[in-house]
Amino acid sequence: MLNIGIIGAGRIGKVHLQSISYHVKNAAVVAMADPFMNEETKALIESMGVKKIYKDYHQILEDPQIDAVLVCSSTDTHAAISIEAIKAGKHVFCEKPVDHSLEKIQEVADVLAEHPECRFQVGFNRRFDHNFAAVRRAYDEGKIGEAHILKITSRDPEPPNPAYIKVSGGMFLDMTIHDFDMACFLTNSDVEEVYVQSAVLVDPAIGEQGDVDTAIITLKMKNGALAVIDNSRRAAYGYDQRAELFGSKGMVATSNDTLSSAVISDANGVTGEKPLFFFLERYMESFSEEMRQFVDACEKGTPVPVGIHAGMQAVKIGLAAKKSVAEHRPVRLDE
Amino acid sequence: MLNIGIIGAGRIGKVHLQSISYHVKNAAVVAMADPFMNEETKALIESMGVKKIYKDYHQILEDPQIDAVLVCSSTDTHAAISIEAIKAGKHVFCEKPVDHSLEKIQEVADVLAEHPECRFQVGFNRRFDHNFAAVRRAYDEGKIGEAHILKITSRDPEPPNPAYIKVSGGMFLDMTIHDFDMACFLTNSDVEEVYVQSAVLVDPAIGEQGDVDTAIITLKMKNGALAVIDNSRRAAYGYDQRAELFGSKGMVATSNDTLSSAVISDANGVTGEKPLFFFLERYMESFSEEMRQFVDACEKGTPVPVGIHAGMQAVKIGLAAKKSVAEHRPVRLDE
Amino acid sequence: MLNIGIIGAGRIGKVHLQSISYHVKNAAVVAMADPFMNEETKALIESMGVKKIYKDYHQILEDPQIDAVLVCSSTDTHAAISIEAIKAGKHVFCEKPVDHSLEKIQEVADVLAEHPECRFQVGFNRRFDHNFAAVRRAYDEGKIGEAHILKITSRDPEPPNPAYIKVSGGMFLDMTIHDFDMACFLTNSDVEEVYVQSAVLVDPAIGEQGDVDTAIITLKMKNGALAVIDNSRRAAYGYDQRAELFGSKGMVATSNDTLSSAVISDANGVTGEKPLFFFLERYMESFSEEMRQFVDACEKGTPVPVGIHAGMQAVKIGLAAKKSVAEHRPVRLDE
Amino acid sequence: MLNIGIIGAGRIGKVHLQSISYHVKNAAVVAMADPFMNEETKALIESMGVKKIYKDYHQILEDPQIDAVLVCSSTDTHAAISIEAIKAGKHVFCEKPVDHSLEKIQEVADVLAEHPECRFQVGFNRRFDHNFAAVRRAYDEGKIGEAHILKITSRDPEPPNPAYIKVSGGMFLDMTIHDFDMACFLTNSDVEEVYVQSAVLVDPAIGEQGDVDTAIITLKMKNGALAVIDNSRRAAYGYDQRAELFGSKGMVATSNDTLSSAVISDANGVTGEKPLFFFLERYMESFSEEMRQFVDACEKGTPVPVGIHAGMQAVKIGLAAKKSVAEHRPVRLDE
Repeated sequence: MLNIGIIGAGRIGKVHLQSISYHVKNAAVVAMADPFMNEETKALIESMGVKKIYKDYHQILEDPQIDAVLVCSSTDTHAAISIEAIKAGKHVFCEKPVDHSLEKIQEVADVLAEHPECRFQVGFNRRFDHNFAAVRRAYDEGKIGEAHILKITSRDPEPPNPAYIKVSGGMFLDMTIHDFDMACFLTNSDVEEVYVQSAVLVDPAIGEQGDVDTAIITLKMKNGALAVIDNSRRAAYGYDQRAELFGSKGMVATSNDTLSSAVISDANGVTGEKPLFFFLERYMESFSEEMRQFVDACEKGTPVPVGIHAGMQAVKIGLAAKKSVAEHRPVRLDE
Repeated sequence: MLNIGIIGAGRIGKVHLQSISYHVKNAAVVAMADPFMNEETKALIESMGVKKIYKDYHQILEDPQIDAVLVCSSTDTHAAISIEAIKAGKHVFCEKPVDHSLEKIQEVADVLAEHPECRFQVGFNRRFDHNFAAVRRAYDEGKIGEAHILKITSRDPEPPNPAYIKVSGGMFLDMTIHDFDMACFLTNSDVEEVYVQSAVLVDPAIGEQGDVDTAIITLKMKNGALAVIDNSRRAAYGYDQRAELFGSKGMVATSNDTLSSAVISDANGVTGEKPLFFFLERYMESFSEEMRQFVDACEKGTPVPVGIHAGMQAVKIGLAAKKSVAEHRPVRLDE
Repeated sequence: MLNIGIIGAGRIGKVHLQSISYHVKNAAVVAMADPFMNEETKALIESMGVKKIYKDYHQILEDPQIDAVLVCSSTDTHAAISIEAIKAGKHVFCEKPVDHSLEKIQEVADVLAEHPECRFQVGFNRRFDHNFAAVRRAYDEGKIGEAHILKITSRDPEPPNPAYIKVSGGMFLDMTIHDFDMACFLTNSDVEEVYVQSAVLVDPAIGEQGDVDTAIITLKMKNGALAVIDNSRRAAYGYDQRAELFGSKGMVATSNDTLSSAVISDANGVTGEKPLFFFLERYMESFSEEMRQFVDACEKGTPVPVGIHAGMQAVKIGLAAKKSVAEHRPVRLDE
Repeated sequence: MLNIGIIGAGRIGKVHLQSISYHVKNAAVVAMADPFMNEETKALIESMGVKKIYKDYHQILEDPQIDAVLVCSSTDTHAAISIEAIKAGKHVFCEKPVDHSLEKIQEVADVLAEHPECRFQVGFNRRFDHNFAAVRRAYDEGKIGEAHILKITSRDPEPPNPAYIKVSGGMFLDMTIHDFDMACFLTNSDVEEVYVQSAVLVDPAIGEQGDVDTAIITLKMKNGALAVIDNSRRAAYGYDQRAELFGSKGMVATSNDTLSSAVISDANGVTGEKPLFFFLERYMESFSEEMRQFVDACEKGTPVPVGIHAGMQAVKIGLAAKKSVAEHRPVRLDE
């Protein structure tokens, strides 16, 4: 049984609390810390059987009964807390992105190199989604041959509020970062070069923050495959999350998940349901699965499924994407 | 918090134990009883935090801390245990069928009439399936107008073993009983008349037991709709569970659930996944939902979603179906 | 080059004229006859290059240059004109049904037996539909194993006018007759027994004519398979024409055809097009293909794809269906 | 009735001959010319009722009975013959591309400017495809709002032979040119900028000819929309032709056409048919429709649906794409 402390009691911290409580057999959340811990949150956490509730996360790091911590605090604290936790001898699950700065991620990587016994996993939950995992499996099993073209469609149902956009690091580090990781995961390759064609088409307020809301991103993968991601901050029909991998022997493609398969035929046409609303609905099961695999890696000492390299790559691609927009040209990752 | 005791630790008893533990917030399984309780089962039950484990279910009925019992024992004991439990002041969730005899079901109904405070729910879990619930919702919302034709396809991935068939009550009371309940649920109507055309096409051994393995069952509903169920004990591609309701303004139809939406296009064609294997995979979420609604009804004293009338109807239809086969003619339920 | 005369210049006669002119290379329509030939129809026919236009079809039968005739007149004249044409040494394509009376069909069969050189084809065009032909092909190729359950859904977009219903012979001989033929075609078997559960749900005026507008028809096929047809005279979403054949090794199923594959996702859902409106849209290509195969059979002296046996069977089933409704019981075809 | 002469009796010339003969009511092919006219081709043409068969196309241009010509000769002769035909007073349908040189296309445009009575249509047949036309129609009807992202997938079933590649002008002018025109058509906008990421992944022999076989092409449209085209010279599952237009109010997407809708479910999965093999199968109906509209424009003096501007645009984009590959940067069309 792995004893887990969660640092950060925001939305994603609560998601992990529930996932572990309900869906991970060999782990228990025993402590949770948040500087802004209020009564309501406290009550929720207690109702899940968590006894130790703190404002200061150091109490978790110092607790010898705790084997692993989940870093679910604000992005700017991910790297520092991760380093502290590694040094405190905890296994670490760090939400994405590890940081917006490659230097800080490298610092984490350096500390990790000195603690080989530490299991350090990055929160790219989509790798554990049933559909995307099926794409990768088909590729691994040779069903589509060599990878030639990857297409990822990733559109949010609605843009975040302008205040969030300001601190988000921009669409590429906030939203597309998942798709960058998906590109690496689905082609099983790192990225060599990025080119972005982007625009502000959804909301001028986003442009006023210096960000974009619509983009087509072309990637050249190191294994020779080409990839394209298309993003929008607002799809009127909801959360659009699809992938299609085309190769020398065939193609594997996924469609969106819906609440039910019911289709109504009437005088207006033949109508099925919209995609599940947003990431909590769409990816809930993947949050459980990433936890199960993290816990297993900690318990068995086996490699984590998503390590610091993946966390570094995705940010590198995101920064290159921003540079591509700024300089309006393809940008190599090794520049 | 509703304290629950489960009577019967077979497959379905374990399913409910897990559903309640993981997916029902306001209930806890505190006791479980099975005359054949072995060490392995005991260990599993204990690992879920159940403290009271018995061989004799009377210990559950006598426990004043227990609010509700789930009757998951063998079919021939459902009615008697249900009656004991009602009289002991427990709420009761009884697995389907309540019994193979209408008289015994009537006895349960009679005892229930004397205990209006008792919440008594029958385990027709498919009513809580996301797809079938969406069909009924579309109908209730008037999207297809008046119901004209209901089509239910229900095919198992493989037949039960011959020993089970002998005690099963025959395909209509064992397998089709779910479809009979679905017919009533989806059209929101009772049945008036049944006609069966059946055959032994899957396995002659089934015929040797006096049962059939393939059938087309036509129902005339009391509200005027016509319904047809087609059954097979073995679909090579797995568990086939679909419904289609056609009405004056349109049609609502569902398709099978799959593990993922991944579709592979190659030189052989365009291939998606087979349906989820069998009822545990296909209907797992519905087991949780039926428990949530049962617990809610107990906690709030509101009506249960599937009462004794539904339990009686489905068996009535099943017995009429057997008579239709025996006498090769349409059989009215009020004969 | 096969020279063809068409008897009857109604809707279906014109369809065949166009099919042959545009889509059949080795045939030409050289004559057309209709007792109600008007100027408009005449102009249309002439525009297609037909030189000989008559009111009296005998002029076609007497024309030694004409090799084959299409009998597209009113149903009550099909048998008599067919017999005249056979005796006149013409090949004959006769629209369905050959007649409503089995005796008259038998007379045609008897005359045919005396003219073995005559190619006589019945107009069950759906056998040549790309979807239904694909179902039969999959079955013939052994892809689904032995046939166990056939399901045919056949719903019209709107009922015929009451005047037509009076002379139509009733829904089973007018509309379902195509489905009866499909049942025989798709299972490659004749029918042994019929049971009908029917109702008047679409329009009381249809019931006042002594006819029904909604039905579920169960068939027991001679090869052991079970089949079910569901009919409605009015589907709000248009012409619904689907088939599904389930067997020991799998299932083959078809869906409706649409004008395009365009699907619109918006705030209301994910909406595709309604089925093609009615039989002229849905089955146009099948009319061409049945003509190509008829012409080939005439030219090469090979067997026709749909002979008098099929024409007889479908009517037999239709009459048994009417009897099943009247006597409310399953009816054997050999009674 | 429009009298048409076809110049060039290769594959596409024959396609137009058949389309007009079978599917265009108010036109007739009266003459056909090809310098390599052989006996077999001649026999075929004669069988379609064409009386005037020449080696020298000037005989067509000089024939006062001929109203319109189709320029279906080799690409390098399109512009010159078009100009001759315009000057000879004929309406002209010119196969795509009009030329590989913008100067030559401009010459045609200049001559056209002097002959305003001439109907000049370019052979971008995909605009008349039922699926793509439905996408444009949805956009025109406001169903998806403002255009934000267009995605076109265009993959051939197999690459042309190396000899053809040498004279093809490269993939962008030979194959992608259709997709460039689709991008303009579907977004109803010209292109502002092009960026190409391409590779040789299908066959090294293609690379040896200095061409590519796989590409992702990003377009910035003048109306602000972003577009992406992905190309492959070989899709193992056949001809992949899809489009998806995403906008402020929703998305419209198309899928591939198949021979039938039959889907087989068996132990291996749920398998539908591959896309129709190649452009003759997939786009046959569109060839008829483009002819019907060309003939209508000639007969009525109305504007043609695809004029010289479209012919010029597509080549401009193609040349910019080649430059983008050569210089590895985004290229503006107005550079």
